[in-house]
Amino acid sequence: MPVRPTIALLTDFGTHEGYVAAVKGVILRRLPDANLIDISHEVPAQDIATGALLLLDVGPYLPPGTICLAVVDPGVGTARAPLAIECGDRALQLVGPDNGLLFPLASRGLFRAHAIRAQTAMATTVAATFHGRDIFAPAAAMLAAGATVDQLGPALSQLVELQLPRPRREGRQLFGQILRIDRFGNLISSIVRADLPADVAPEALRFDLGGVVINGLSLTYGLVPPDALLATIGGFDRIEIAVNGGSAAARLGLVREMSIPLTVNWD
Amino acid sequence: MPVRPTIALLTDFGTHEGYVAAVKGVILRRLPDANLIDISHEVPAQDIATGALLLLDVGPYLPPGTICLAVVDPGVGTARAPLAIECGDRALQLVGPDNGLLFPLASRGLFRAHAIRAQTAMATTVAATFHGRDIFAPAAAMLAAGATVDQLGPALSQLVELQLPRPRREGRQLFGQILRIDRFGNLISSIVRADLPADVAPEALRFDLGGVVINGLSLTYGLVPPDALLATIGGFDRIEIAVNGGSAAARLGLVREMSIPLTVNWD
Amino acid sequence: MPVRPTIALLTDFGTHEGYVAAVKGVILRRLPDANLIDISHEVPAQDIATGALLLLDVGPYLPPGTICLAVVDPGVGTARAPLAIECGDRALQLVGPDNGLLFPLASRGLFRAHAIRAQTAMATTVAATFHGRDIFAPAAAMLAAGATVDQLGPALSQLVELQLPRPRREGRQLFGQILRIDRFGNLISSIVRADLPADVAPEALRFDLGGVVINGLSLTYGLVPPDALLATIGGFDRIEIAVNGGSAAARLGLVREMSIPLTVNWD
Repeated sequence: MPVRPTIALLTDFGTHEGYVAAVKGVILRRLPDANLIDISHEVPAQDIATGALLLLDVGPYLPPGTICLAVVDPGVGTARAPLAIECGDRALQLVGPDNGLLFPLASRGLFRAHAIRAQTAMATTVAATFHGRDIFAPAAAMLAAGATVDQLGPALSQLVELQLPRPRREGRQLFGQILRIDRFGNLISSIVRADLPADVAPEALRFDLGGVVINGLSLTYGLVPPDALLATIGGFDRIEIAVNGGSAAARLGLVREMSIPLTVNWD
Repeated sequence: MPVRPTIALLTDFGTHEGYVAAVKGVILRRLPDANLIDISHEVPAQDIATGALLLLDVGPYLPPGTICLAVVDPGVGTARAPLAIECGDRALQLVGPDNGLLFPLASRGLFRAHAIRAQTAMATTVAATFHGRDIFAPAAAMLAAGATVDQLGPALSQLVELQLPRPRREGRQLFGQILRIDRFGNLISSIVRADLPADVAPEALRFDLGGVVINGLSLTYGLVPPDALLATIGGFDRIEIAVNGGSAAARLGLVREMSIPLTVNWD
Repeated sequence: MPVRPTIALLTDFGTHEGYVAAVKGVILRRLPDANLIDISHEVPAQDIATGALLLLDVGPYLPPGTICLAVVDPGVGTARAPLAIECGDRALQLVGPDNGLLFPLASRGLFRAHAIRAQTAMATTVAATFHGRDIFAPAAAMLAAGATVDQLGPALSQLVELQLPRPRREGRQLFGQILRIDRFGNLISSIVRADLPADVAPEALRFDLGGVVINGLSLTYGLVPPDALLATIGGFDRIEIAVNGGSAAARLGLVREMSIPLTVNWD
């Protein structure tokens, strides 16, 4: 356990309005030694699936013992439960709404989920519109200070289960899709390294993106000619379509948030 | 007093150009243990009133003993004084220009203001265009290290007094206005919870936004039908107009920074 | 040496996708006490020169002993070496790709450069597309924990040498250029204070920006009439063209990333 417990924050609050600072202030009031890092506050507003995907990809790289405070919460203040989840061997603990946001990361392994009910894990007055500050921040600070999830409230046997898109294999074809476009214009897909056939050479794979065909999987961007389209495996182990020194999104005339099928074929 | 003093930063510097990093570097040179958190660096350029509103709303959630370094400073390097302010019981200390930015937060309670003049509270060479780095950062580090505002320079009896818009009550009507539009498209108003009549039920309030009428105050967003307009009390205790699962700004065709009257009526 | 070593990060990763959080997570796994600050993650994608300029300007304000982790790396995973550089008296150590990004800051003084080759300075599995996380983050953590650059790999005698634009003097004229436009619409140039003639009064300098002439160098923005154009020396000692209370870029109809000549004349 590190001397200074890390609390990692993911929200759709943006950085213009002080919502994140209020959350951090509340954590530091309870735990002045907390080590706060931002995963992102730029999740598209109310987009639970994009937030869940980001948590799923980044989670494994956070230090053991990290508490993730994640808030993308269109149902704030309604009957949906506030959650505290302990993953596996307490490598991670997650705090956030029961709306699917935490589920893909939690369900990578064993976990146990509790509702947050304890008065000590909440502000004295809870604003129905800002549980990030008044419930999740105090609860995260308590966990970071050493509390366990069962001290925050009763166990929950059923969570909202968000299933992120997974590719489907049929014979010598893999049917996936583009999930998002990153800052470089790379098209990030639902297909991860482990989905590819183990016995097929990278150069024998064909990637078909709505009729645009790319032959072979490149080790990295700079191994094809400048401005050429390529397929590679990105940092979070996902197949992505990119352009060496450019933007695949711009090349293909794509804008953010489109859902495009990506098919992988081999002989 | 926490072991690691917190310094909270609010500026209009943005995060593209390294101005914030230079400020943080100067603080850490003087106080390697400072705990730096960002309130926001996305205050619209030179918009003192928006910065002052953000400070006012977030300030109460910062840990006791926090030093706020706030810089929205079109008059940098001119005769306007650099300020160090001690609020009330030293719950907060504020550093920034005497242009109204710090005034709304400071004047919530008792405070004393000093000009920053001490050579020890400045860089050896002060760039007339960057007091954030050369005066406010060293001064904030000194306060965080335990100095008091009177050690930084002489007391000031008169400050620039910025008055943020406050609603006006006339009989059974409250005349306020929209102050800003947040990332969710929520319209944040000048009316706070305490301005509402204490003896009127939330469902008896009528909100009139330029002819668009909303009946009743919702506890939170998700308690009206999807896509319906609502009025609620947001995280910083301000009445806001929102859409459940959507954007009120988009619904009403509003763009940022418009000043729109919001009237509350009751019988 | 501060108790908590500072690691300053500069990338073109943006803050939407979790790449930065993965880098920070890896650092904190190895060094839970690291003090992480962001220089910027908004360097335009793959724009090595803009990143190098930012590092050059901000570097001198970072605390002694800081490790800069800088990643703008279109050639990630190719033959370009991963670098660890010790500047002068270890005031700064730099980690990043050998593509010119680190060169302008390093070459301000004496430095020694090593390739990062040690297995202990890398993740067990290195993604060819994400050296920021799998090579540069572990290497930065090792340096912050006290390792020296020679422990990371062999010395390099030759680096990629990026030369940023420098002004040219001819008699009583200085020929420079605008390098970037900042958030305020200020036009930041390649001319620094030390380039100006030492024996000429500020008011005798004439600044010519493509036919727009400004007479005299102002000490700061607010010393000319509101909305007037001015030339001043900005925070990083660079001559900049600005508008008091406004945006020079908007006034002159300029958009980002144009390269415009700026000439200084005197008699």
